[in-house]
This record gives sequence, C-alpha cells and structure tokens, in this order.
Amino acid sequence: MKVLNTLKRFVATCLVALTCTQMSVAGVVVNDTLKSEVLQSDIPFCVYLPDGFNRNAEQTFPVLYLLHGLTDNERAWTDKGQMERVADDLMRSGESRKMVIVMPCAGGQDIHKVWNGYFNMPGWNYEDFFFNELMPTVEKKYRARNTREWRAIAGLSMGGGGSVGYALRHPETFCACYAMSAWLGSNKQLQHAQQNNKSKFFYLQTAVDSLAATRVLTNATADERKNIGNVAWFLDCGDDDFLLDQSLECYQTMRRLRIPAQFRVRDGNHNWEYWHTALRICLPFVSRNMGYNNY
Amino acid sequence: MKVLNTLKRFVATCLVALTCTQMSVAGVVVNDTLKSEVLQSDIPFCVYLPDGFNRNAEQTFPVLYLLHGLTDNERAWTDKGQMERVADDLMRSGESRKMVIVMPCAGGQDIHKVWNGYFNMPGWNYEDFFFNELMPTVEKKYRARNTREWRAIAGLSMGGGGSVGYALRHPETFCACYAMSAWLGSNKQLQHAQQNNKSKFFYLQTAVDSLAATRVLTNATADERKNIGNVAWFLDCGDDDFLLDQSLECYQTMRRLRIPAQFRVRDGNHNWEYWHTALRICLPFVSRNMGYNNY
Amino acid sequence: MKVLNTLKRFVATCLVALTCTQMSVAGVVVNDTLKSEVLQSDIPFCVYLPDGFNRNAEQTFPVLYLLHGLTDNERAWTDKGQMERVADDLMRSGESRKMVIVMPCAGGQDIHKVWNGYFNMPGWNYEDFFFNELMPTVEKKYRARNTREWRAIAGLSMGGGGSVGYALRHPETFCACYAMSAWLGSNKQLQHAQQNNKSKFFYLQTAVDSLAATRVLTNATADERKNIGNVAWFLDCGDDDFLLDQSLECYQTMRRLRIPAQFRVRDGNHNWEYWHTALRICLPFVSRNMGYNNY
Amino acid sequence: MKVLNTLKRFVATCLVALTCTQMSVAGVVVNDTLKSEVLQSDIPFCVYLPDGFNRNAEQTFPVLYLLHGLTDNERAWTDKGQMERVADDLMRSGESRKMVIVMPCAGGQDIHKVWNGYFNMPGWNYEDFFFNELMPTVEKKYRARNTREWRAIAGLSMGGGGSVGYALRHPETFCACYAMSAWLGSNKQLQHAQQNNKSKFFYLQTAVDSLAATRVLTNATADERKNIGNVAWFLDCGDDDFLLDQSLECYQTMRRLRIPAQFRVRDGNHNWEYWHTALRICLPFVSRNMGYNNY
Repeated sequence: MKVLNTLKRFVATCLVALTCTQMSVAGVVVNDTLKSEVLQSDIPFCVYLPDGFNRNAEQTFPVLYLLHGLTDNERAWTDKGQMERVADDLMRSGESRKMVIVMPCAGGQDIHKVWNGYFNMPGWNYEDFFFNELMPTVEKKYRARNTREWRAIAGLSMGGGGSVGYALRHPETFCACYAMSAWLGSNKQLQHAQQNNKSKFFYLQTAVDSLAATRVLTNATADERKNIGNVAWFLDCGDDDFLLDQSLECYQTMRRLRIPAQFRVRDGNHNWEYWHTALRICLPFVSRNMGYNNY
Repeated sequence: MKVLNTLKRFVATCLVALTCTQMSVAGVVVNDTLKSEVLQSDIPFCVYLPDGFNRNAEQTFPVLYLLHGLTDNERAWTDKGQMERVADDLMRSGESRKMVIVMPCAGGQDIHKVWNGYFNMPGWNYEDFFFNELMPTVEKKYRARNTREWRAIAGLSMGGGGSVGYALRHPETFCACYAMSAWLGSNKQLQHAQQNNKSKFFYLQTAVDSLAATRVLTNATADERKNIGNVAWFLDCGDDDFLLDQSLECYQTMRRLRIPAQFRVRDGNHNWEYWHTALRICLPFVSRNMGYNNY
Repeated sequence: MKVLNTLKRFVATCLVALTCTQMSVAGVVVNDTLKSEVLQSDIPFCVYLPDGFNRNAEQTFPVLYLLHGLTDNERAWTDKGQMERVADDLMRSGESRKMVIVMPCAGGQDIHKVWNGYFNMPGWNYEDFFFNELMPTVEKKYRARNTREWRAIAGLSMGGGGSVGYALRHPETFCACYAMSAWLGSNKQLQHAQQNNKSKFFYLQTAVDSLAATRVLTNATADERKNIGNVAWFLDCGDDDFLLDQSLECYQTMRRLRIPAQFRVRDGNHNWEYWHTALRICLPFVSRNMGYNNY
Repeated sequence: MKVLNTLKRFVATCLVALTCTQMSVAGVVVNDTLKSEVLQSDIPFCVYLPDGFNRNAEQTFPVLYLLHGLTDNERAWTDKGQMERVADDLMRSGESRKMVIVMPCAGGQDIHKVWNGYFNMPGWNYEDFFFNELMPTVEKKYRARNTREWRAIAGLSMGGGGSVGYALRHPETFCACYAMSAWLGSNKQLQHAQQNNKSKFFYLQTAVDSLAATRVLTNATADERKNIGNVAWFLDCGDDDFLLDQSLECYQTMRRLRIPAQFRVRDGNHNWEYWHTALRICLPFVSRNMGYNNY
C-alpha cells in the first residue's frame, strides 16, 4: 500500500513536472492590432511580455523591436523562429534582461501585390508609421521604457536591413542594433526607375537601394557619424548566405569610418536555424548595451 | 531601360535566392507506418533522409534512432524540435555525417489510456518490436548500414531513458548513445506493485524502475561492463531540469565502474529549446564515433 | 620607385600592425605587495588594470577578486592562465565590463611548509587579512568601487572553494561568485583532529572541511539563506574533474534550499585549459550581475 | 587515529590528483632538428606526439602541420599558444583524432636579417625543404600516415598564408586546410621590384604577393580547380583583425569559383587568444575531414 502511494505521488509529481516546469519562468506573446492613419490600414503586431509582466503594474521594461523578413508577417518570429523559447531561456538564466519584444507586421506572401518593407515608399510610409504611431502606442500600452538607452532594434534579412536603416538614420532612438543576414541595398548605384511599374516589390527595391547602408554611411556628416557611433552595432551573417557580401561591405565601411561594430560570420545559410541561433546572441548583446550610462 | 533590366534580373535573383537557397542542401522527412505483429498494431514512424538520398539508389547511410518523450509521438522531433533544420545545417557544413534518422512512435497524449514507453511491458512489448521488427525493416527499406559501427541511438526524457536502456542492454547493437534530460528510473527501490492497476502509465513506471540505469550498470558482469564500455556515451541535462539527479547518478556510476562517458550540464530546463540545441551537439558526437575502426 | 615606396609603406604598416594591434585595447598587470599585520608578512598580489585606467584619474571601476589554487601563487592566473588575453578580448568586445581584477597570493609550492588557503587557520588568519587589509587597501589604491553591487569573486580549485566560502559567509560583500573546479570540503564529516600535526596542509584541510559549503548552507538560518540567495552563483566543473562530486553536491544543496544558482559541467579536467575557457564565461557572468539595481 | 589515517589518505589522494590528473591523457612535445641540404642549415622543429604514441611501436597516426607566424619560430605554438593543452583536451574527449602535430621553424625575430616565410625565395627555398626534406623525414621518424587522406595543414598569419598556399598548389598532398588570420598577399598588384634590396623581408613580401591566394585561384585551370575543391577549406579570422580583408577576398573568390569552403569571423583580433580558441575548432575540423573515403 505504501509502495502504491509512493508510486501515485511520483506519477503526479512527474506529470506536473513534465507539463509545468518549462512554464515556471515564461513570457507570453500577445496578438494586437494598431489602426494606422499613416498607412490607412490595421497593422497587426505581436508583443512578447516577459515573465512577471503582470505581477507589478508599475514596472517598466526595456524594449526590443524585432523585425521579420520579406514575405513574412508579425507571426514569423514566433511561428518559425520559436522566439519565446529563446527569450524565456535567456531571461531565466540572466543572459538576457527581461524586456518587452515588439514584432510588427511589415509584409506578406505575395510581394508584388502586398506591401513589404520598413522604409517610406510612395503609398506606404511605413517608417512614419513605425516612429510616429507604433512606437509611442506600444511603449505606452506595454510599459516599455521610452528612452534611447533602453530601446534596441533587431531583425532578419529585409528586417535586418530595416533595423540597420532605422538605427543609422535615427541613432538618437536606439542604443543597439543587431542585424541578421541583412538586406542592405544592391551593390549597383540604382537610380529611381520608371514610375509606372506595377509591382509593390519594385518600390521596396527602389527604397532599399536609395537608402543603402553604405550610401547613408558615406554621405553622413561628421556629426552624424559621431551619433551613429553611439549605437552598439552587431552584424551577423552566415557563410553560405547569398547576402553575405552586403554585411561585409557595410562592416568594412563602418570600419573605415571608425564606427565601432561587431561582425560575425557563423556557419549557416539564409534560414530559420540561423536566425534562431542568432537570437541567442542578440538578446545578451542588446541587454549589455542597455542602460549604458551605468556601465 | 538598362537599369530596369538590371532591376528585374535582381528581383528574380532575390526571389529565387530567398525561396530556394535553404533547400539547396536539404533532407526530407517521410511519414511511414509499420504493421507490428508483436504489438498487434500499426506503428507510425518518421524517417529523415539526408540530402542526396535519392540520387544514388546504391548508397547506404549510417543510421540514428531518435526517440521522443512521454506524451509525444513520432512527429515531436520534427514538429516541436525542428530536427530537419539542425540536420540539414550540420550535414551541409560537414559537422554531421549524412545519415538516416529514424523517429518511431512510442507514446501518446493520454498516458493512462495510451501506451507510452520503450521497454517491454505486459501487453506492450515495445522493445521486442523495436529490435525485431522496426530495425530490420527500416534499415532495409531506407538503405541504412545494419552494423553496430554505423548505428547510434539518442533521445530525450523518456526517450533518453530508452536510448540508455537499449544501449546498456544491447551494446553490441549501437556504437554511440546520446541521452538528453534522461528519465533513468526512480531513486526508490520500487518492487512490482499490484497488478490490478488500470493506468498504462503504472506499467511504464514499473518498467523504467526495474530497468533503472544504475541498477543495470551495478548488476552487470565484468564482461557486460566491457561491452558497455565500447559504446560512446554522452549524457546531457539542463541545470534547471527536474531530472538532473538521474543523469548525475548514472554518470557517477559509470565513472566508478570505469566506463568512459561524456557528461554535460548546460544552461536550461526540460524543454524543446534544450533539446534543439542538444541535437546540435548530438549529431557531431555520434558522427565522430561511427566507423570507429577507422579512427 | 613608386612600387618600392608602396612596398616600404606596406612593410612598415605590417610591422606596426603585427606588433601593435593587440595592444590597442589592453590592460596592464601590476605586481604589488601588501605588508600585512594580520599575517605578519609581506603578501604579494597582482592587479589587472583595464585599458584606459590611467587616462582618467577620477574614474572608478568594478572589481573582481580572482583566486588561485593549491601550490600556486599570485602569478598563476597570468603566467599559466593568460588572464590578460581573455580580459583584454572580452572587454574590447563589450562582453565583459572594464574592471579591476585582483589576484592575491595565498599559497606556495611546498604545501607542508608553506601556508596555503583562504580561510582562517591557527597562525594564518588569511580571511581576516583578505577582508580587513587587502580589500580596503587595493580598492582605495586602484580606484575600485567599494560597494557590494560592483564587487565579485571567482577562483579555481582551492580558490574556487575560497570564493564560495567567502561569498557564503559574506554575502553582503559580493554580488556574484563564479567557482571553477571548486574544492568545497571533504565528503566525510571530519572532526578536529590532533593538534600536533606538523604539516600546514593539515590545517588547511581541517579548515576547508569545517567550513564545507554544504555544511554552511545547511546550517544557515532563514535570514542568512535569504542573503546568500542575493548573490549570483555560478558553479562550473569539468566532467573529468576529480572534484566534480563537490560541485554537484553544493549545487544540489542550493537547489534544495531554493537558492538560485547556475551550474555547468563542460568537457574537461582539473587543468588550465579548463580554467582559461572558464574565465571567458566568468567575466560576462559577473559583469551582467553587477550594478544589479539597474537591471 | 582512524580520522587521522583517513585524513592522510585524503591528503595523498588530493596531491596525486592535483598534480597528476591532467597528465593521465597527455601527449608530449619533442624538440628535434633537421639538417637541410636545400637550406644549407639546421632547421629546428617541434612534434606533438599524442597520448599512447610510445605504447605501440607499430601504430601510425594522422598528421597535422601547424605553422607559426612572422617573427616567431617552432616554439610559438607551444610557448604562446599552449597547443598541448588544447590537443590533450580534445583528443581525450574524442573531438579530435589522435594525431602527430608537426611545427617547423620558418622564421625569427629580426625579419630584415633572418629568413621568414614558407615559399621559395632566392636563397631560401623553404617550400622545397618542406616537401622534399621535412615531410618525408618526420612522417617516417614519427610514424605519420604519409597519404593525402590522413594529412592536414593549418597555420596563423604568415603561417595561415603558408598553409593556404601549400594546399592550393599541392591539393594532392593535404585533405584539409585551416587558415587563421591568414596573410594571403597584398591587394596591390606588386611586380618584382629591385633586386638589390637588402632586407630578407622584402623577398618574403614579394613571394607572398606573387603567390597571392586570389591570384593562384583565378589562374587555376579547370582541372586544378577541381583538385583544389577536394581539399576541405576553413578560413577563420577575427572581426578586429587588420588582415580580415584578405580572408574575405579569398573566401569570396572560392565561392565564385564554386570551391566549397568554410568561413568564420569570430570576435577577436590578431593575437594568441584568437589562435588558441581557433585551434579548438581546427582540430575537430581536420579530424572529421580525414580518412574521407570512410565518410
């Protein structure tokens, strides 16, 4: 009888343990939508709220904007990148600060018919939306600290280019930028081509090219470069990635201009296994570059 | 005009690159079923076939059996563990050999009503099924090399215990065993309890306890220990895992008996982020312990 | 002629680069000595001063005490552990904060004739020396921040045990403790043995046993445990280390007492390759646990 | 009395353990010299012989040639790089095969008066010495397997360039090449300058430029490229290294020519901390690319 009771207790313990342990320190992902006047459209976004977010209604948190790539949407980082697992793990062990992670939608499957992209384009001023509507709204609603030293940005592919573009041209807004497999402009000096092109992807391509990272860097004034140098930069790209050249070129340009930056080429390709492992490096990196004045 | 053509070419290149690159070196996962006489049931299993499997109908491959945990099934490693991503990546870079990876079903959600477990139990002789039906069938059908030096086993939680149990009692069958967060028996010396228990989990618990790793090790004859020592062992468990004690105890027992083994405690819990990263260590480990005679 | 000049310039560049690059961000190690009244002896110590230490005479720095092992002295971490290389690298990339690292002598080769050890022993009250003489002196002289939140401790083997012992019994003094391959007491419940033993090592052994980590933990009051829980703990030991049991036991005791701790078992032995790689984990760990109020 | 005996036994155990454990699996480094007719000089070299080398006089081993950099000599990898520690560790855990590691002298401090370099120069035909004298002699004397599939080459800086140069032009001799922070030629198209230059470094510079990796690759015939593609390539360079451009350019050239290669940019500079950690990646890499036919 005693044995059986021991057994029962053990079974119960096991089941509880198996099903609950990993939840003990776990954030939640919330689906939300913002009615944008700039874009004349409802823009969905996901927000990861760290463990303990709801325990204290006064507590504020650092914030990371985490951008998806071409053809994807606000669900990509959670559905394909398993970002909750990484965030929960690293926040539990202390390798990452507890922070709010915002993942807005900036795209969709059919790149010719659906707008993709983080920059302003004729008819899709996403950058205006991002800075004037999204940021103020979510930072207020989700208790994010709305100062530069507690705000970082990261992204993959088109979102890697978006994060670099944002941080280059708004260095007063972000303390750190982690770009994965970034799409940073074409290498050719493309000029504005014909306006009658029907594909939305045409406008994206044009915007990315005209705001190519190396061009923005090269054209920056001495003052602008100084501000750009205040951002903590990290460029991370796989050795088999078809966009490797662009990260290289951006890094070498920064180096020439004496803008400090981290650069890594790890084993990998333009895929989710790379971005999943990149996030494990990204969260500690942005964490240790936040609240910089205290360092 | 030239600019536009350049643009079009670039767009096309981008799209092809974005959608196809990661497929350039990629295995496929096949869903299959085996009609088992032993279990009087159709047992589903998944098989990962490495890149190039279908290019040469003569080529044979090493084989890894990769076992899931309690309440899961043959889809767990692909659906929750993203095992294809890891395997594709490591095989592309050469860190893992190209191998066939077999993931059989040994469980289900409702542990009281559905059989879970890898050992023989009254009414569910899974171990007999595994060695006498599953292995010969899949190794023939999927061109796996059916010799010890090219065959390894790994698993998580209940499957970690399964892999250790199989390799301990069949060391002539596997050259390497990688156990993640393994469930290796309870610490209490449980005896066979009442037979009238209704829950199938009761039988699993009894089987796991009676074949507890430390007990098998301690009871092994000198000859058996020598054979056990020929297996390349790797025990890997998170520091926050509720089963950590069991991996420790098994490792310390092996150490006392002078059975060489690798042991790691990494940061983590009993969850898929741990097993995903464990697989990145597992595949290179089993790879370098295969074809041992050539070392 | 132009080619030759290019060549000469290149040669000069190369040489400068080859010999100077790694010094661009580099700390210095200073050898110093403290006349101790407690120990009635001159105690040598080394101090690593981070890059930039001498550029601003007002700047203060976090401080890490880094303890050597049995038979070694204050030069061990620099001569055998190449700690400057690791510190320079991690401080340059930002993975470690810039901090002052203090390495005091607490031992020597002939363990029977020379005092080794960090705890108080009859005739060698090293712990008194450490807290009452060494810490105030070096923290003033080398501009270390003399508050708990900016002070950490780490060590290897006997020094791992020293760091755990210090942080357990002075949790109000250190914010973080990283113990490598720690010697934490014998497993036997040794009582004070005969006093007439001639070997200084006898007294060390006695002290280590009587202050064994598990004993201190078990005997701690609820309040003391709460304070102990405020320290960020990290136990790191190789799977082939002969002292692995002691780290395990200490970690399991902490776990039972619900004292949060990190525990890692990496591949390795009781040797300098392990401690060299451990330092690469230690510096980021203590860095992110400093200035805690800002997290 | 019993306590004291226990104590004594423990003390003895500790001491033995502390001083001997790390030797339990340990190679030895032998200093040797070869009288070279080609160079008209005695050339010193070091050889790492893996654990167990002397236990079986019949056993043969794979061989790795490990090259030092400018201004250094055959002792650099042992004295500054602690290569024994890394090799012992990785061979013990099985991450590296047990292999003979040959470290020949190809340089010295005063680069203007002492010959440095691995290629043939007027008056210093080191490449002839390497292939015709060094390799046959050491492979016979130290029981190295003298076939391509068991022979690899690696090096740092000037030695990284040496290893790439050797493997590019002798792909039938090496199965793998791992180049760290490699000096692969200047970017300028330098022609042979005046012959009356007095500095030996001038000749080295000229040789390195005329055999620049990208030039050799670009000039290779289709057949030669095919052979080059049979070597397993790994280029590894720190993001702060002043030579990063050269590894990038070489990798991009290989990529364009569809020669498979691994490329990594890790955090670091042109220093021994980088090369020490690089060796931990190098040994497993060359190990898994040896005996290729068995993969």
